[in-house]
Amino acid sequence: MRISILGGGGFLGRKVASRLAADGTLGGTPVTSLTLFDLAAPPAPSAPFPVATLGGDIAALPAAAIPEGTDVVFHLAAVVSAAAEADYDLGRRVNLHGTDAVIDACRRLARPPRVVFTSSVASFSGGQGALLDDDARQVPANSYGTQKAAAEMLLADASRRGFMDAVSLRLPTIIVRPGRPNKAASSFFSAIVREPLLGLETELPVPDAFAVWVASPRRATEWLLHAAAMDTAPMGLDRSLTPPGLSVTVGEILTALEQVKPGAAALVRRVADPAIAAIVGGWPPGFRPVRAPALGFARHEPLVDVVRAFAADDLDATRRERGLG
Amino acid sequence: MRISILGGGGFLGRKVASRLAADGTLGGTPVTSLTLFDLAAPPAPSAPFPVATLGGDIAALPAAAIPEGTDVVFHLAAVVSAAAEADYDLGRRVNLHGTDAVIDACRRLARPPRVVFTSSVASFSGGQGALLDDDARQVPANSYGTQKAAAEMLLADASRRGFMDAVSLRLPTIIVRPGRPNKAASSFFSAIVREPLLGLETELPVPDAFAVWVASPRRATEWLLHAAAMDTAPMGLDRSLTPPGLSVTVGEILTALEQVKPGAAALVRRVADPAIAAIVGGWPPGFRPVRAPALGFARHEPLVDVVRAFAADDLDATRRERGLG
Repeated sequence: MRISILGGGGFLGRKVASRLAADGTLGGTPVTSLTLFDLAAPPAPSAPFPVATLGGDIAALPAAAIPEGTDVVFHLAAVVSAAAEADYDLGRRVNLHGTDAVIDACRRLARPPRVVFTSSVASFSGGQGALLDDDARQVPANSYGTQKAAAEMLLADASRRGFMDAVSLRLPTIIVRPGRPNKAASSFFSAIVREPLLGLETELPVPDAFAVWVASPRRATEWLLHAAAMDTAPMGLDRSLTPPGLSVTVGEILTALEQVKPGAAALVRRVADPAIAAIVGGWPPGFRPVRAPALGFARHEPLVDVVRAFAADDLDATRRERGLG
Repeated sequence: MRISILGGGGFLGRKVASRLAADGTLGGTPVTSLTLFDLAAPPAPSAPFPVATLGGDIAALPAAAIPEGTDVVFHLAAVVSAAAEADYDLGRRVNLHGTDAVIDACRRLARPPRVVFTSSVASFSGGQGALLDDDARQVPANSYGTQKAAAEMLLADASRRGFMDAVSLRLPTIIVRPGRPNKAASSFFSAIVREPLLGLETELPVPDAFAVWVASPRRATEWLLHAAAMDTAPMGLDRSLTPPGLSVTVGEILTALEQVKPGAAALVRRVADPAIAAIVGGWPPGFRPVRAPALGFARHEPLVDVVRAFAADDLDATRRERGLG
C-alpha cells in the first residue's frame, strides 16, 4: 500500500506517519512506501518501508507528492484559523486551491486513491447553545471554516466523478497540543493543560463554564487511520463525517488536570479576553454524531485519559524543545 | 447607482438589463451607468443612462467589468449544469474561480458593492420525495451544484469580511425559456410549453406525475432586482436564500398549456428517457421557504400566468429567431 501525507510535517501528519512506521500496515495491508509533503520537506521517521520527503506549495503540487500507484492520500495541509483570517489570499490559496491541486493530482492516477481530508468544527457556527446533528448546515463564521466546508464539497464531487474516494473528517479542537502557546484563538484549550504540567503559569480567557468540542491527538490519529481503510460504499454522495468528539467545559478540563497532577490548576489565571471569547464563542460546543460511530469511528476516551496521554506521549519532547530541562 | 451585470448576455442577464433600461431606477434610486460583461460583449439595450459592454473570461475578470464606484453587481455568469458535468475544468474555472475573481474585483473597490448571485436548486439533492426547509444541507449530485454551493460559501465569507454585501438566490428551474431545445437535462420543462405554442411536436422524457420546482423569468427577474435593493442587515452570516418558487407536476404544466392554447398538449409525445430522468430525478421538487418571503421576496404567480407571460414576452421573438414566420 502506497501512502502520501500532505501536511506531513504538521502535528497530526507526524502522528500519522509515526503510527504507520510503527505498525508497518494500514487496515491490515502492509505499507510499501510513504511520501511526506509539506512546505519544507518533513523529517522522515524510521520505518520498515521506504519514506520519501519533499517540500513545496500545495497549490502548485509537484507530481511526486502523489506518485502513480498511490493508494491513500492524507490531505492534512492547511493554513489554520487565525492565519487564514489574517491573510485571505494565503488561506484561499492553500485551503481551497490546494484542494483543487489534490483533486487534479488524483485525477491523473490510473486508479482513484482514498483521500482522507481534515475538515473542522470551525466550519460550523451557532455558539455556546448549539447542539448539532449530522445533517446540520455549515454556516461558517471564519474564512478557514468557509474554505474547509467548500473543500469538503469539492472532494465529495470529485468522489462522485470517480477521481478519488474521499472521506472528510470534521475534526474537533485537538487537545492537548504540544509545543508553545501560539496566536490561534483555540491555543488556550491546550495551554491550560500543557503549561501547568510544565510548571508554568498560563491565562484562561473564558469562564470555567465555557464548553468546547474536543478530541485527543491519539483519537484523531485513530480516526484518520480508520477513514483510510474503511468501506466507503455506505457513504453515498455525502463524504463528510463528524467523528464522536467530547463536549467538555473548561472547568472539566481543569478537573482532569488536577486528577493527573494535583495542584497544577492553580497555575491557571483567569484573565478575560473578549476578543478570543468572541472567536471561540462562535463554535458549536456539542454534536450528536450518529453516522460516524455507525461507520466504525471509535467513541472518545474519557478526558482524564487525554491529559494522561499528553503527559505520556508529548510532555518530555515539549520540555526538551522549549529548553525546560 | 452604478450597476454591473456579469453574464449580461445570458437569458436572465438580458431580462435584468431590459428592466433596468425600462425603469431607469433600481429600488427607487436612478441608475447612472450599466456595464454588461459576458464571454462576448453583449448587445446594449437602449437606456436613459450610459451602457458599457465588454467581453472576456470571468476567471480573469477585467477591472472594467466592475469599475470603481460600482454599487450593485449581478453575478449571473455560469457554465450550466450539463456543460459543467461534461467539462470539469471549465465548470470549475467559470463557476468557482470566476467567483474568486468577482470577490477580488469587489475587494479593490473603495466601497463594498451589493452582489446578487444566482445559485441553484441543483445544489440540493434528495429526489422526488424531498421537501426541504430553509436550513437544509446542500448535498449536490452534480458538479454545477457543487460549484454553486461552494461559491455561496465564499460569497458569504467575503460579505462577513466586508469585501462585499452578497445575496445568493437559489433559483428554481426557470420555465419557460425561449430559443431552441438544448442538451440541458432540464430543457424539456420549457420545451413542453414552448414547442407546442410554436405548433411543433416535442418529447416528454418523464411521467406526467413527475414534480419539479420552477419559477418564471418574470418572477426570477423581480427577485434579482429585490435582492439588489433589499436591506441585508437581518441576514447575518447566512447570505443564501431559497426564493418562493412553485412545486408543480409535468401534468399541471400541460394543463396550464391547454388553458392558454386548447389542443396544444397533444403535440407532446411521451418518450421515456432514463438518462434524463436520472439527472432531473435527483433534484428536490419542493421547498418550504420561510426566510425569503419574510425578507420581501414576492410569492410566485399561478402556473397559467407563467404560460401566458411566455406567450406575451418571448414567443414572437422565439418564432422570429427560429425562422418560423
